[in-house]
Amino acid sequence: MSYFDRTTSVTDLGGGRYDAELDGGWKVGGGLNGGYLLATVGRALRETLAPAGKPDPISVSAYYLSAAVAGPAQVAVDVRRDGGSTAVVAADLVQDGQTRLTVLATYGDLDRDADDVQTTATEIELPPREECVGKDHLPPPFRDMAPLLSRFDALQDPAHTGWAVGEPDHSGVLAAWFRLQDEREPDPLSLLLTCDALPPVLFTHGRMGWAPTIELTVHVRAKPAPGWLKVRHATRNIAGGMFEEDCEVWDAGGRLVAQSRQLARVPR
Amino acid sequence: MSYFDRTTSVTDLGGGRYDAELDGGWKVGGGLNGGYLLATVGRALRETLAPAGKPDPISVSAYYLSAAVAGPAQVAVDVRRDGGSTAVVAADLVQDGQTRLTVLATYGDLDRDADDVQTTATEIELPPREECVGKDHLPPPFRDMAPLLSRFDALQDPAHTGWAVGEPDHSGVLAAWFRLQDEREPDPLSLLLTCDALPPVLFTHGRMGWAPTIELTVHVRAKPAPGWLKVRHATRNIAGGMFEEDCEVWDAGGRLVAQSRQLARVPR
Repeated sequence: MSYFDRTTSVTDLGGGRYDAELDGGWKVGGGLNGGYLLATVGRALRETLAPAGKPDPISVSAYYLSAAVAGPAQVAVDVRRDGGSTAVVAADLVQDGQTRLTVLATYGDLDRDADDVQTTATEIELPPREECVGKDHLPPPFRDMAPLLSRFDALQDPAHTGWAVGEPDHSGVLAAWFRLQDEREPDPLSLLLTCDALPPVLFTHGRMGWAPTIELTVHVRAKPAPGWLKVRHATRNIAGGMFEEDCEVWDAGGRLVAQSRQLARVPR
Repeated sequence: MSYFDRTTSVTDLGGGRYDAELDGGWKVGGGLNGGYLLATVGRALRETLAPAGKPDPISVSAYYLSAAVAGPAQVAVDVRRDGGSTAVVAADLVQDGQTRLTVLATYGDLDRDADDVQTTATEIELPPREECVGKDHLPPPFRDMAPLLSRFDALQDPAHTGWAVGEPDHSGVLAAWFRLQDEREPDPLSLLLTCDALPPVLFTHGRMGWAPTIELTVHVRAKPAPGWLKVRHATRNIAGGMFEEDCEVWDAGGRLVAQSRQLARVPR
């Protein structure tokens, strides 16, 4: 079993309650990666809704209340409506009696109408992978701060990696090839992680440090084809101590498979 | 009192429960406008959190479960975390025992760090208002379908109004000057409405009809200055029977005051 599948697995206790064991390998900065936590909740939702023919996250919104740590956690799922082709569901991830994140989501079946595509967005352009910048090129302080970086390959577009050597390009853009550890192929669940896996886009403005997520919504728009993903983060409005971070994920077949936006705090 | 303030008002019953009277003047297509419902919930959240110094919506995510109708409704508010400078809160809007929408939100004080602005997004460009297309220019079928249209002035950029005369421009873009009825000045609460007030952007692709919202998240990024707002909707990914609709709202001072995204169903 892949590292991703093992560390996001949940045990069904019945009645919409699941046990999880959060894994320290997803640590970054002050806590566990928010995308990892979202994928773990997403798996509990999948377990709940797959029997009803709604295995796939379509829209998932998370509000982050406190920093999660490695160790036991519980997911509590509440199906708010299940009718027609989709279900709306609420869920909390709880540790030691503290809610870490609270989630609303719509689940359904992404095989429905899958061939109806009218995308005017243009695919992310990246240099060949051998010209991109992997984690081995990052200065040791970044690698030591983030065990997360060993969970996947993110081969970054060198046009936007100046921040790593003290020369931020002030573009507000990051882009990378992305593949999970163990060559685990992407699926709708892993996309929840992928949308929050790259460094904070504020790094490109030279504003380093932990940028806690206030809210993150992921729209999974199609099942991804096997192979490398292309991921792009962008921010256009740093204001009031907060910034938005938009993310697009394109699959190996050239399809836009996920769109997300988060609101996060500017590092102090 | 303005129409907006009167029809979004709530009565505090104590214990996080509020009574509302949903107003038929916000009707459009198959139900009441989703932005109006969100603003009504937003007002109940404001009543709950203003005493704690957190009067302003910062991020609000709504999942729409069933179509609301004119008449009595209840809002149930549950404060999930209140500490530091923000609070996270959950709320349901309920009618006749049916949940119409369920909401997660972060509230705070938009006067904090209000002068810290580093926006790289470019302001919406619109022709002068006298060259734009108001509701009086819409064919009667549109006006009759939507009492909503009398609640505000939306003076649309004529570059994108071909759909109204059977000549859709296939741009995926709509833009308009916006002002509430009664010249009611914009505030953070009314921005929740403004982000969902224009026609569905799919009209520009000639795909007419009711486009039910699955999920809508609004980030209020600053308190708007008095005067006309500029609003722009755009979609870039119609696929799988769904489309995203991004919205930006700029105020009379040239500031980006709200960013939203919704996922909605393509009309059948």
